[in-house]
Order: sequence, then structure tokens, then C-alpha cells
Amino acid sequence: RAVLAFDDEQASAGALAQALGAPLHLIGRHRFPDGELRLTLPTPLAGDVVLYRSLHQPNEKLVELLIAAPTARAQGAGRLWLVAPYLAYMRQDMAFNPGEAISQRHIGALLARTVDGLVTVDPHLHRIAALDEVMPGCRSVALSAAPAIGAFVAAQRQRPLLLGPDSESAQWVQAAARAVNPALDHAVCQKVRHGDHEVRVTLPAGLDLRGREVVLVDDMASTGRTLVAAALLALAGGATRVDVAVTHALFVGDALAQLQAAGIGAVWSTGCVPHTSNAIDVTPLLAEAL
Amino acid sequence: RAVLAFDDEQASAGALAQALGAPLHLIGRHRFPDGELRLTLPTPLAGDVVLYRSLHQPNEKLVELLIAAPTARAQGAGRLWLVAPYLAYMRQDMAFNPGEAISQRHIGALLARTVDGLVTVDPHLHRIAALDEVMPGCRSVALSAAPAIGAFVAAQRQRPLLLGPDSESAQWVQAAARAVNPALDHAVCQKVRHGDHEVRVTLPAGLDLRGREVVLVDDMASTGRTLVAAALLALAGGATRVDVAVTHALFVGDALAQLQAAGIGAVWSTGCVPHTSNAIDVTPLLAEAL
Ligand SMILES: Nc1ncnc2c1ncn2[C@@H]1O[C@H](COP(=O)(O)O)[C@@H](O)[C@H]1O
Ligand SMILES: Nc1ncnc2c1ncn2[C@@H]1O[C@H](COP(=O)(O)O)[C@@H](O)[C@H]1O
Repeated sequence: RAVLAFDDEQASAGALAQALGAPLHLIGRHRFPDGELRLTLPTPLAGDVVLYRSLHQPNEKLVELLIAAPTARAQGAGRLWLVAPYLAYMRQDMAFNPGEAISQRHIGALLARTVDGLVTVDPHLHRIAALDEVMPGCRSVALSAAPAIGAFVAAQRQRPLLLGPDSESAQWVQAAARAVNPALDHAVCQKVRHGDHEVRVTLPAGLDLRGREVVLVDDMASTGRTLVAAALLALAGGATRVDVAVTHALFVGDALAQLQAAGIGAVWSTGCVPHTSNAIDVTPLLAEAL
Repeated sequence: RAVLAFDDEQASAGALAQALGAPLHLIGRHRFPDGELRLTLPTPLAGDVVLYRSLHQPNEKLVELLIAAPTARAQGAGRLWLVAPYLAYMRQDMAFNPGEAISQRHIGALLARTVDGLVTVDPHLHRIAALDEVMPGCRSVALSAAPAIGAFVAAQRQRPLLLGPDSESAQWVQAAARAVNPALDHAVCQKVRHGDHEVRVTLPAGLDLRGREVVLVDDMASTGRTLVAAALLALAGGATRVDVAVTHALFVGDALAQLQAAGIGAVWSTGCVPHTSNAIDVTPLLAEAL
């Protein structure tokens, strides 16, 4: 068994390789002036090969993968596993307007044709029950970082209150809270979208936040707008402190600065997406699944 | 029959649609802050659908295509044709060093699985005889712009001498020259690569360029290094003027400025890759193949 990765993920992939007791090989990547890539893989390969590639800012990485996977096979790889701690294109799971591409289905099917197995963490599946539906004919494993996040938060704060931003996060927030004994206090907000850009969040009725240390928990943070809205509400509701813990730290553009401007204290994330906020290790979780 | 295209190729795709007497529909494209795309196709679709997408700077466009094609099918499209006047990843047709991905093969197979038929112009096939080998199970048509280029040059210059930069261009330069009656004068240089960056070009022995109007012709120009080397030689050999005519105007970075600095006069290209140098129409050629 060998782990293959690109240089920008050498640290996370190296940790996984070590946990597996397998060698790590970096894939060489050269970009020609015309935008084409030339990849160089270790050769020969044999047995199970694990491709480590988290799929944030995914398009370029998808093309890399579509070239690297058949090349690994040509080099002799047996079963090909994709470890994509962050799986892209999962949010577009239906046509929200007529004619819209259901990218989730098409990217899912494409990946399913490209590798034999997929391991990912907290895929954003809102209206779909299981990853199997998205990845037909491919062994897929969806792990959850919620327990690791719960345990981490419990080690950082005395009597935290975990707050999820919307009803979809309820089960996930519960899992984080119940990973600790006794379970952490927890609650979820209601979120209503207005168009593509505006998000309105309301606190659950009767929730008393006065004097509480609130930790906003979510599967991912992209623009951070939802977290900002929830943080402002929590602080207005009397919380003494609001921190953030997420699985996937996408944090596009100035999202992190916006969080700070909204009065958020610490921002913690798992290493699924490489980011300065990475604090929670998911390596053992990934290693166990392989 | 309908033609689908993205807004940055509305002009070329519109000309093709008009030549086919088919409607042109633009595919809507939205980029989310996290780098993912949301495409919106006309719906419903029926019958043959032509996706127009030239594949220069290909990676982002490949992902678009991998989402758009199955979406077109889901919308009801029958046979799906890809018109990619420029076909990407054709130059990496073998492992030049151990472990190198043979991108041509993998991208070719990927496209062959994505559409039913492909129409392209002057694909850069150096060591491969036919596009069929690259696109197994897909109807593929490789057109040549050489005759159109020959005719165009003959209309611009009195007694031009067509000069190809390397031996691989010989047949192609011949086709351009022989598209005119009587055939235009023509010759090809010898090109030797030194590593990834240096290119050395030599003129054919005994070729007299004194007083000649030379037109460098090639299938594609990327960095323009080869054209610059050939132009300097031709001018040193006594050519009174050196112009350039290519099928694919990739012209990355400051390539065009480098050409001018080397003393090259006019730069002409076909519309296969949208560029300021576009002067030669390939619409009739494409329309005839469909
Ligand atoms: N990558 C993305 N970033 C932001 N919004 C997205 C993305 N992909 C899909 N969407 C939109 O998110 C909405 C559904 O997301 P959700 O409410 O989280 O289930 C729909 O309007 C989708 O078009
Ligand atoms: N997109 C590209 N741009 C520049 N060089 C390339 C590209 N793709 C492959 N190559 C290299 O070009 C050489 C072969 O090209 P050629 O001599 O034109 O057949 C090999 O060294 C390839 O690795």
C-alpha cells in the first residue's frame, strides 16, 4: 500500500501515510505555459494505492485527478482509493432553477468511474441520504468529524454551548455534543435564505445565552456569512464569548476577517482543508477507514 | 439540432449555428465563491446537440464540459457532438520521462466517454497516426485548416514562401502550399529541442531566402519561441519580410510582443482559438463536418 499526494498537501498526506505505515510518494506537477499539466507518478506501483486529494477549489484538482488516477493504474496500481477529506460539488444536489446542472450527480458519477473507493469527511448532503447514491458502483465511506470536534471543544472551554446555524446541522451538532460525557449543551438556529446572497438566522425560542460561552459548529464555512449572522445574534443574546469550530475551513476571500469583525474569538477547524485555523486532527479517523 | 456554447465563444459558435441553420443557446455559468461552477442549460433539449468549446487553457473548460455534457443528456439531448476547434493535451502523447502521465490518452478517453462525436481542427498528433486511437469508441473528425491558410496567404502576398518550423510540419505545409494553383513555394526547417525551454532551428540547406516574402506556417503557436527562432533565421538569410500564419493562436504571456520584437510583420490565425490575430474563417469547414 502506498499513499500518493501533491506537494501542497504533503503534511496531511504524510501524517496519513505514517498512520498507515505506508510510504508517501509525491506526484510531480509541471504546468506548461498553455495551462496544461504534466504529472509524474512514481513507477512502478503495485497493490492498493491511496490518492490523497482534498477537493476545495476543485476544478484544477479534478483534472489532476482524472489524469493521475488512470496513470496510477497504468503504472500497475491495484485498487485505487481516493481520500478526499473535502468532497466538492455536493451542495448542488438538484436543479434549484429550471435547467440547472445537478453537479453533485455528475461529479459524483465521474469520481465513481475514476477510483474504486472514496473516503471523505462530512460531505454536505442535504437532500440525499447517503453517499452511495452519489457514487454509484464505488465503495464510499463518509466519516464524521463531529465527535472529534465535540471532544476538542470540551477540552478548550469549561461549559460550552454548541450552536448549529440551521436545522440541517441538528443531528451533527448532537453527535458533537454527545461525544462528550455528560453531553455538552447544544441548540440549533433556524436559517432562511433570501436569494443567493442574503441569509437570515434566528435563535431558537427560549434559549438563554446570557453568560454562556457559545461555540458555533458547522460542517463547513465558505463565505462565513452564516457564522457571522449567528455570532451577532449570540452576542446580542448575552453570550460572553463566541468561538467557531468547523470541519471544512474553506474561508474564501476575507471571510476570516469578517468573522473577527463580528466579534468571533477562536476559529478551529479540522485538517480536512489546509488552513491556518487547523487544530483538530482527523488522521486517525481517515486511517481507520482504510 | 441546436448549438450550445459559453458566452466567451458566442461569436464563433453563433457563426457555426448560422451556417448549420440551427439555434444557438448560451449556457449560463455562475461561479460560487468556493470555486465551484453552477451551469444552466436550455431545457428541454432534443435531437442532436452540438457543444461548441475550444479547449485552450483547458482545465476549467474540461470540468465545465464534464458537467455540461451529462446535463444536456438529462435535458433530453440525443447525440452529443463536441466541436472543439482546439483540442487540448495532445502533445503529451507518451512518457518522455519515466512515470510521466500520458495525458493525451487519458484526456482523449475521458472526452470519448463524455460525448458521442468530436470535431476538431489540426490536432497536434506527432507520434499518433489518427485521432481514433486517442478517442476510442467516439466518432472523431480531424479537419485541417492548412488549405484555408494556403489560400489566405496567397491572397495577401505576391510570391510568398511558406516555411514550416520543423519536419513534423512538412505534410501540413505542403497541403497549404498545394491548396493554391500553381502551388506556393514551401520548405521546412529542422528543429532540435534542448530540454524544456531551448529550441534550436536550422534552415534547410541551399534554401535561398534573399528578397523573399516568407510566411511561417504552423499548426499552433504557444510561447512563440519556435517562430521567433525561425523568423530571425529567415531575416538573417535575406528575407525581405516575415509574416506568420497559424491554426491555433494560443500565444501565451507576451508571445505576441516577442514575435514583433523579432521583426515579424503580420500575424494571422484561424478562429479556432479566439484571439486578436484571427483572420481566417474555419466556420464553413466545421459546418461541413457536422
Ligand atoms: N459551491 C456552492 N457555494 C454556494 N452555494 C452553492 C454551492 N453549490 C450549490 N449552491 C447553492 O446552495 C443552495 C443549496 O444549498 P443548501 O441550502 O446548503 O442545501 C442552492 O441555491 C445551490 O444552488
Ligand atoms: N502543453 C504543452 N506545452 C509544451 N510542451 C508540452 C506540452 N505537452 C507536452 N509537452 C512536451 O512537449 C514535448 C513533445 O512535444 P513535440 O516535440 O511537439 O512532439 C515533450 O517534452 C512533452 O512533455
